[in-house]
Amino acid sequence: MQTYSHARSRELFARATKVIPGGVYGHLGPAEGCFMPVGAYPLFSSRAEGAYFWDVDGNRFIDYMCAYGPNILGYGDKDVEAAALAQLKEGNCVTAPSPRMVELAELMVDTVAMADWAFFCKNGGDTTMFALMIARAATGRARAVLTRGGYHGVAPWTQKEGHPGITSADVSNNLYVEFGDYEALERLFAEHHGEIACFMATPYHHPVFEDNRLPPEGYWQKVRALCDREGVVLAIDDVRCGFRLDTGGSDRHYGFEADLECFCKALANGWNVSAVCGKDSLKDAAGSVMYTGSYWLSAAPIAAAIACIGKMRELGAAGLCMEKGRKLTQGLAAAGRRHGFDLRISGEPSMWFMRIAGDDSWQTHQAWVAECVRRGVFFTNHHNHFINTALTDEDIAFTLEVADEAFAVVAKARR
Amino acid sequence: MQTYSHARSRELFARATKVIPGGVYGHLGPAEGCFMPVGAYPLFSSRAEGAYFWDVDGNRFIDYMCAYGPNILGYGDKDVEAAALAQLKEGNCVTAPSPRMVELAELMVDTVAMADWAFFCKNGGDTTMFALMIARAATGRARAVLTRGGYHGVAPWTQKEGHPGITSADVSNNLYVEFGDYEALERLFAEHHGEIACFMATPYHHPVFEDNRLPPEGYWQKVRALCDREGVVLAIDDVRCGFRLDTGGSDRHYGFEADLECFCKALANGWNVSAVCGKDSLKDAAGSVMYTGSYWLSAAPIAAAIACIGKMRELGAAGLCMEKGRKLTQGLAAAGRRHGFDLRISGEPSMWFMRIAGDDSWQTHQAWVAECVRRGVFFTNHHNHFINTALTDEDIAFTLEVADEAFAVVAKARR
Repeated sequence: MQTYSHARSRELFARATKVIPGGVYGHLGPAEGCFMPVGAYPLFSSRAEGAYFWDVDGNRFIDYMCAYGPNILGYGDKDVEAAALAQLKEGNCVTAPSPRMVELAELMVDTVAMADWAFFCKNGGDTTMFALMIARAATGRARAVLTRGGYHGVAPWTQKEGHPGITSADVSNNLYVEFGDYEALERLFAEHHGEIACFMATPYHHPVFEDNRLPPEGYWQKVRALCDREGVVLAIDDVRCGFRLDTGGSDRHYGFEADLECFCKALANGWNVSAVCGKDSLKDAAGSVMYTGSYWLSAAPIAAAIACIGKMRELGAAGLCMEKGRKLTQGLAAAGRRHGFDLRISGEPSMWFMRIAGDDSWQTHQAWVAECVRRGVFFTNHHNHFINTALTDEDIAFTLEVADEAFAVVAKARR
Repeated sequence: MQTYSHARSRELFARATKVIPGGVYGHLGPAEGCFMPVGAYPLFSSRAEGAYFWDVDGNRFIDYMCAYGPNILGYGDKDVEAAALAQLKEGNCVTAPSPRMVELAELMVDTVAMADWAFFCKNGGDTTMFALMIARAATGRARAVLTRGGYHGVAPWTQKEGHPGITSADVSNNLYVEFGDYEALERLFAEHHGEIACFMATPYHHPVFEDNRLPPEGYWQKVRALCDREGVVLAIDDVRCGFRLDTGGSDRHYGFEADLECFCKALANGWNVSAVCGKDSLKDAAGSVMYTGSYWLSAAPIAAAIACIGKMRELGAAGLCMEKGRKLTQGLAAAGRRHGFDLRISGEPSMWFMRIAGDDSWQTHQAWVAECVRRGVFFTNHHNHFINTALTDEDIAFTLEVADEAFAVVAKARR
């Protein structure tokens, strides 16, 4: 297997640093703390199709980041693109919404188990902020309980005091609890009785830089009962997990019903739309909050979402992603063992997190990821990965071959 | 001229209310306080092209709302669509950005007079929030001075305490001043010396429900000098005005330079992208803020923005919109006079605001707008309007004919 060069990526990056703060932002920024194997990875893509993208130097990668979630049916899925392109010809961003908006809301109510209604916006962060505001409007309370290390976007209230640009007022309504610790949550609710508008959490805990954690047995059922008892809105941030655990919502996957559920990412296979679904009891509160934005009524992403949900249901996309993820992660762990590495897999298989155990500095893990990326398998260092339905058995076999070779290189360097 | 029926719109709206809070949200919601002539207007669009949209009942409207700003070159502009569609074939929402992102940043630096760099996101509200966070990160200060009635999105910090979902903590860092009152701003800066991170305002004041106000002579130059003296970041929210006053930024139109400038709306003729431009002195601060989101690297909207900016420059779009707006608003005011109405035009011609003077209840104004909408001219009640370059002399003539007839109807009803 050849290893890849990144001359054009580096050249573009040099241009980017002149006109974009940090050059490339988000998780891709090759700054300190980034989640990518800096020296080894491609910075710019030229093309994407199915499970692959090609970088500007012509290298192909099996992409296990899936644009950080949106790619669930394969890049450029024919059915989703056809629906979006047909709508584009009629009209996209127009003063009045298209009937597609009503159709998507009806489809989401039919698809998402907890949903009585749906509301569409653009970013994942738009949905978590709206959920918070709905909960406050409905309860007349100000506080939100969040899980430590949980990610709900980049708005100041979701970040930590002391981070650049964040003030103490931004987070003064927040209370924090460990994900999965029901007793701690119960204590917090008791201490702040009558003050808490909502408990917001991801369906399972998928932070960066640490093993992902599934909810303990019975956790969500107890949380549901507690929220009912205390009149607290249970808001599930399904932005990342949504449609990869269960097409009917990740709350259904874990056997409970959220009051509000936030979707984005896989909703439209990369077309720009996000959604909040809610229970009837919160519909008036949702309608009372002033919430709108540029492009929010745009019809092409909404048409794409209709096609994407239809195809996800038809394929059983969540189940397929789980199955492919299981096969892949079992193979990756086995490859590690063959070379004396304990590769710990955590989280759900369709969105697994991995790290080499006993590697506190992460250096060995990063070296292994870099060797994989150099061979055309796009992993990142400290973020969960994503499976899409276009990933084939051949892709998985190729990945396992690369992973094995990468472990061999790292094992040799360690000796 | 025939008046229009809205049977299919009403039918769809009945379906919408079952599955979407409020039925249709944003400015279009036919709820109390909405900005539309409720009884007369179409709720759903089926098609859009150039200066027109067609509703689901087959009625054509000359659209003076332009999707609340994005439509600047005409709906479905061939050059913008071709650029976006070509990029869609290569890849849109991919793990790594495309070279288009660097090209757009370079183009914005070349186009926007104040810009040393650019950063892309999705909503207008994403850009104002980022500007606030950059200013705080750069100054180590918490407070923002905003203008009373100014609109910067829907995030809690931009709304008013007491609005549904808004808490006192959300707005506790805000100070408010009247737009255009330099002395009041100077006093506020003195009272809060060393506490103010930024002054954020629109280039001219374009609130809803009141006459829009241009900056007084010399205002921005004095503000610029004051901000320099006090080390306060001058952030211009050009989300709505951007590219309709001057392709090089609305600060250039008024003869000053902002430190940060927010763009959205007209940036990509309806494709989903927004941008913050900034001075080099704030580049490191911008890079230090954690700010990213789903779809933010998507290449198709970025390719659309490149084509849109190119065409706006080539056409001199801002100048064209100003000219068309001047012609139209002069004609509208003359039509009013013919029927004994004083139609007050305010703001810039490309984005004019209008109201019938001496009509404190707004009833006469609303009745006139409704008569226009019934005849195929889409105005709204209490929001500024927008001009696009696809609007022809014939469209303007048709509009003036309709406006005249509508004034006649309202005058007759008043007698």
